[in-house]
Amino acid sequence: MSGYVVEPWRLRWSGLAVGELRRTESTFALSNGHIGLRGTLDEGEPRGLPGTYLNGFYEEHPLPYGEAGYGYPEAGQTVVNVTDGKIIRLLVEDEPLDMRYGRAVEHERVLDFRTGTLRRRTEWVSPTGKRVVVRSERLVSFTQRAVAAVRYEVEVAEDTQLVVQSDLLANEPVERGESDPRVAVALEDPLVADFAFAEKNRAVLVHHARKSGLRMAAAMDHEIEVDDGMRTGVHVEDHLARFTAAVDMKAGQTLRLTKYLGYGWSGQRSVPALRAQVEAALAGGLQTGWEGLLEEQRRFLDDFWDVADIHVDGDEGLQQAVRFALFHIIQAGARGESRAIPGKGLTGPGYDGHAFWDTETFVLPVLTYTVPEAARDALRWRHSTLHKAKERAEVLGLRGAAFPWRSINGAECSAYWPAGTAAMHVSGDVAYATAQYVDATDDREFERESGVELLVETARLWLSLGHHDQHGGFRVDGVTGPDEYSAIVDNNVYTNLIAQRNLRAAIAACERHPEVAERLAVDVEEVADWRDAAEHVVLPFDELLGVHQQSEDFTEHAEWDFGATPPEKYPLLLHYPYFGLYRAQVVKQADLVLAMHLRGDAFTPEQKARNFAYYEARTVRDSSLSASTQAVLAAEVGHLDLAYDYLAEAAFTDLHDLHDNVHNGLHMASLAGAWNGVVAGFGGMRDHDGHVTFAPRLPPALNRLAFRMFVRGTRLSVEIGRESVTYRIVSGGPFRTKHHGEPIVVEAGKDLTVPIPPVPHRDAPRQPHGRRPAHRGTD
Amino acid sequence: MSGYVVEPWRLRWSGLAVGELRRTESTFALSNGHIGLRGTLDEGEPRGLPGTYLNGFYEEHPLPYGEAGYGYPEAGQTVVNVTDGKIIRLLVEDEPLDMRYGRAVEHERVLDFRTGTLRRRTEWVSPTGKRVVVRSERLVSFTQRAVAAVRYEVEVAEDTQLVVQSDLLANEPVERGESDPRVAVALEDPLVADFAFAEKNRAVLVHHARKSGLRMAAAMDHEIEVDDGMRTGVHVEDHLARFTAAVDMKAGQTLRLTKYLGYGWSGQRSVPALRAQVEAALAGGLQTGWEGLLEEQRRFLDDFWDVADIHVDGDEGLQQAVRFALFHIIQAGARGESRAIPGKGLTGPGYDGHAFWDTETFVLPVLTYTVPEAARDALRWRHSTLHKAKERAEVLGLRGAAFPWRSINGAECSAYWPAGTAAMHVSGDVAYATAQYVDATDDREFERESGVELLVETARLWLSLGHHDQHGGFRVDGVTGPDEYSAIVDNNVYTNLIAQRNLRAAIAACERHPEVAERLAVDVEEVADWRDAAEHVVLPFDELLGVHQQSEDFTEHAEWDFGATPPEKYPLLLHYPYFGLYRAQVVKQADLVLAMHLRGDAFTPEQKARNFAYYEARTVRDSSLSASTQAVLAAEVGHLDLAYDYLAEAAFTDLHDLHDNVHNGLHMASLAGAWNGVVAGFGGMRDHDGHVTFAPRLPPALNRLAFRMFVRGTRLSVEIGRESVTYRIVSGGPFRTKHHGEPIVVEAGKDLTVPIPPVPHRDAPRQPHGRRPAHRGTD
Repeated sequence: MSGYVVEPWRLRWSGLAVGELRRTESTFALSNGHIGLRGTLDEGEPRGLPGTYLNGFYEEHPLPYGEAGYGYPEAGQTVVNVTDGKIIRLLVEDEPLDMRYGRAVEHERVLDFRTGTLRRRTEWVSPTGKRVVVRSERLVSFTQRAVAAVRYEVEVAEDTQLVVQSDLLANEPVERGESDPRVAVALEDPLVADFAFAEKNRAVLVHHARKSGLRMAAAMDHEIEVDDGMRTGVHVEDHLARFTAAVDMKAGQTLRLTKYLGYGWSGQRSVPALRAQVEAALAGGLQTGWEGLLEEQRRFLDDFWDVADIHVDGDEGLQQAVRFALFHIIQAGARGESRAIPGKGLTGPGYDGHAFWDTETFVLPVLTYTVPEAARDALRWRHSTLHKAKERAEVLGLRGAAFPWRSINGAECSAYWPAGTAAMHVSGDVAYATAQYVDATDDREFERESGVELLVETARLWLSLGHHDQHGGFRVDGVTGPDEYSAIVDNNVYTNLIAQRNLRAAIAACERHPEVAERLAVDVEEVADWRDAAEHVVLPFDELLGVHQQSEDFTEHAEWDFGATPPEKYPLLLHYPYFGLYRAQVVKQADLVLAMHLRGDAFTPEQKARNFAYYEARTVRDSSLSASTQAVLAAEVGHLDLAYDYLAEAAFTDLHDLHDNVHNGLHMASLAGAWNGVVAGFGGMRDHDGHVTFAPRLPPALNRLAFRMFVRGTRLSVEIGRESVTYRIVSGGPFRTKHHGEPIVVEAGKDLTVPIPPVPHRDAPRQPHGRRPAHRGTD
Repeated sequence: MSGYVVEPWRLRWSGLAVGELRRTESTFALSNGHIGLRGTLDEGEPRGLPGTYLNGFYEEHPLPYGEAGYGYPEAGQTVVNVTDGKIIRLLVEDEPLDMRYGRAVEHERVLDFRTGTLRRRTEWVSPTGKRVVVRSERLVSFTQRAVAAVRYEVEVAEDTQLVVQSDLLANEPVERGESDPRVAVALEDPLVADFAFAEKNRAVLVHHARKSGLRMAAAMDHEIEVDDGMRTGVHVEDHLARFTAAVDMKAGQTLRLTKYLGYGWSGQRSVPALRAQVEAALAGGLQTGWEGLLEEQRRFLDDFWDVADIHVDGDEGLQQAVRFALFHIIQAGARGESRAIPGKGLTGPGYDGHAFWDTETFVLPVLTYTVPEAARDALRWRHSTLHKAKERAEVLGLRGAAFPWRSINGAECSAYWPAGTAAMHVSGDVAYATAQYVDATDDREFERESGVELLVETARLWLSLGHHDQHGGFRVDGVTGPDEYSAIVDNNVYTNLIAQRNLRAAIAACERHPEVAERLAVDVEEVADWRDAAEHVVLPFDELLGVHQQSEDFTEHAEWDFGATPPEKYPLLLHYPYFGLYRAQVVKQADLVLAMHLRGDAFTPEQKARNFAYYEARTVRDSSLSASTQAVLAAEVGHLDLAYDYLAEAAFTDLHDLHDNVHNGLHMASLAGAWNGVVAGFGGMRDHDGHVTFAPRLPPALNRLAFRMFVRGTRLSVEIGRESVTYRIVSGGPFRTKHHGEPIVVEAGKDLTVPIPPVPHRDAPRQPHGRRPAHRGTD
């Protein structure tokens, strides 16, 4: 019997289940946003997919085209599995500890959301009958971003000789990915040895990636505690450094090894400089020591949970899933520091390690309202790539900045432009996140240094992308919206509304920072053009059906034959050609519905209800980005049970492996979707134009739902009960907001409890045949 | 001084011009539709791009994708340069005849449209002062399709030793193509040796292509005439067979070598069978002998010119260009026999040797009205690939037959689906050509055996592609029309009108052949569906502008900034991304204008004039397919000078190398466009629903323009003068037709002369900045 155990603050897996290793290595991954360690066993094997990642460290490869075209990106980027420092092998009387042999009396792994560590306890009897208990704990430090550490203990039941080998291993052989186009292109032996050194308990390996030329270093040092009779040695080769300790153990004794790891990379620094950098990191880690690192880790997470925790009363599984989600979001975002937050974080090689618009649209709201400095750093990464986005715009014959569909270093890597480069909303999403962050923090320094420029250059993109029709409407033609089952469409409502927000935010930012606007050569004519375009964006509406068209003529297209589409044909993109998908009313993921969330101010309540029902019947959720947005809108229009089911789907995407690809890493946007589903869904939180408002409702399945937010220096707590909601200032305040449209003021020290208005009755919407979300009650 | 000399019945080039070799090898190519020999010099070097092609013989290669998708073709096909049998090398006293050395006193090549041969005469003085005159004549037999032959003569001015080496050479090294995506993918050493044999004057080489497995054989035999003192030998290796003759020549003597070549290929036959096949071809050729082959060739072409010739009085250059065009069309189509007619014929490796819709839409009308059995054979090729087209439709989730965008063997080879697979009009074009052929010939046998099935399966495609809108209109969404600067559009007018014609032709064919319809399981319900869909196809029209929209919302798109597009940025696809092109009102090639030609019955004269002017201002002619269609419509709406300029552009596309790529082969569709420009343009010939009608007008530049056609067994001559037109029955008759809308009957033996009505005055249309066609007067 193995599987996840439901606990509020931990993810626990009991038993081995070799076949499940690859996906649990993702869920048990540790990261601080800079270093990522997949949750492989200490001893290296058995394993699913080993992975050690450094944010921003990638290898380049040519992008092939059967028929090339002007402006197609020529180079792809792929995250590299760098030197693996997690490995600690154990020989018990010459028998390697390998859980496929001998007998595991007990085995469990625990990811602890409060200590920020991965613990493992294994009681193992070797094929020759020797019994050992192995306990390990692993951390990637939130406070010392270049440092990871492992505490490894072996207890013997009888007199036994143990040999411990602690490795740094470069160019681990990794199995090739599947033929699924979404799975990362595998690269073989990407690392070229530059330098290797070992002395006493310490070793350093420096490598560079063959084509990208990026250089990385990994170092390890060890503390070892044992009573006596120990022999140690260290050995180094090009791709391997190994610290070995041989110990004759007495019954009941414990060997304790603490391994400190230092990682670093650079596109410019020399071998000696990189070596110095990782040795310095190691020195810092050793100075702090294992207990110190643990304590810092705990303190960091206490602070995080204090502002970010969501309390779910009435559904223990969902409680765990939501905390698991928040833990992985903070792991991905905490210390990215001027690097992207990839779609999979640093938990696996999926999507080649690329960052997408998901980060701005789904992940950054969570960070903005909980750990705003992490959101700021992620936006600074975008700002640092602005020159590449401007070059890209130029190649495309446009002005301003065209941010890439997918990238590690900021250069476009998409080899299929109709679903990549054409998705111009990416630039609007970056602008949206920028304005949202600035509104939520009043961070004028960031705005001055980076924000205005991000908004201005993206605003310029829209003006060069769009044009006026004969009636003065501002059209944006030939682009691709969020829904990847449509492409190259005119007047995608989401895109046009995101552009509108972008243009207005640029105008406001330029008004606040006239000196920056002047430096960027923004004049009154340009601002007038922005204002006019924003005012007149075309939003296609089908008068006959009374619904918005996802994009022009969408509602004229043929219906997809859902009745003739059996479950095994999903996801559709693996079984039907784009040709067929693009021309039908089948929606991969929330598109118009996402517009109704992020730009809810542009729709009437009646439009929202009608649109939601219309698109609900045509949305198949083949993307993990969809369920959380559907949860948000379902809650808004009054389908609370459905919203709850969608929230659960988002929250359990990875724990239940709903898309059957968790082995390649976690879905950061779905994990963030758990927060969105709670806070924007049942909390009804909206922040249109910087005004944070709420419209909370409790789903029938729960007793209570509570969340916290950090807005402009104020920490606010919102507790949703059956009949009423209690707003409370945790620190700062007072806080002006709206509750279901009514203005309220929350004063420090005074809980404000207000009743929840009744849910409007609406007929339950229908989903495509077979695509109803699982009902959480039956889960 | 070198270049083409204007002559009515020949293409002559005087002088060497090494830099021009590659493109003149295309214009001087010989072919019978089965074998193609580029016009390389006998001695092999200097050379541009050697090429010997067998129609349908290709090599396979994987199609790469940076991001793959369901239903993308996995294998590409590329025409192979097969064993070269053209080579005859000459040593003059140990000095190889190489025109880059020594001195060419005189050198000329002549392609003779009536003898169907390529003649060469070179007077050369070797570096050591030996003077020889080389005369050669080469043919690819129209009457013996597996046979080619070369007559090679050397005359010496003084006593000289000559050595002649006559080769069969496989796997000639060929230079790689450019990075232009349209240029063929080069393949290295594609041929694997299966068998080699030589004896006396004869040799055979058998090879197969490495990946496609197709097998080919080439054989040669020789007759040699010389007074005395000759030594001959033959030698063979895996990739080379060589017949050598060494002769001590006396002053004034002539050595005469006749080389007979036999070629064959098969996907199934064994090595001995293929060897037997080419040896049999050789035996036939030898039996007929050189003079016999020449005589057969001449007879074949006399027949062709008798029915196909176009007489242009008043423009000698155009006269030559039009005959050159017709000669290459008959070369490409004469003996294809159940193989495709590639976009380049067999004149070069461009487009990888693939056939496109151009064949049906541009080339087949010429053949249908001149050599109908060649059109029939080309349609039979399509029919022979019907199973592949049906499989393709199934992969795409459609019914019926989806013919490929580009192919050699009938399987889709397009690696960029938005401009390939999405161009569903291809299937309608096949149907159009089928109906046109049947209407023009009353060939009921073909109709029964192949025609009905072609029409029914393509009709089925439309019904599965289209659907009804809320008002009963029949929409075809998400397809790509002829214009490759738009893609994935709704209701492309051309496509929808071609579909309408397809559906109506299928209904008519099923009525004529109820037993075939029954075998194909066509019932009355299906026919009713076809009738309804045909009746209600949606044809988007912009009421404000009073013009048809090329596809839905086209006229809402932004205008292209032609003023800011300098000449060196054409063709646009090499300098701007598809992303930018697709979203603007910029047209690569006639699309709506082509619809107005092929489906002129669906437009009023006023609509034609307005539409023509509108699209004329937005069409850049980056495709060689465009000018001839613009000529046809310009003539119809009354812009005779403009029509003449477009006719000249089409006719001179290859002779003037207007697209700078003749080195990769000739443009069959442009060559056919010369015929279309004359017959459909100035002749005003239309054949809507099988009724052949005329509306002739003479362009001011000419004195007289005459053409002939073959319709349902009748040969008709049409002579257009300044004031009147004379219709005459050459054989058969009487012939009922219309002259400018008025019914007339042309009786055998009675010339019918009727006046030409005056040209309606219309303002001259404008072209995009810098894209006016060259004025023929200033040429």
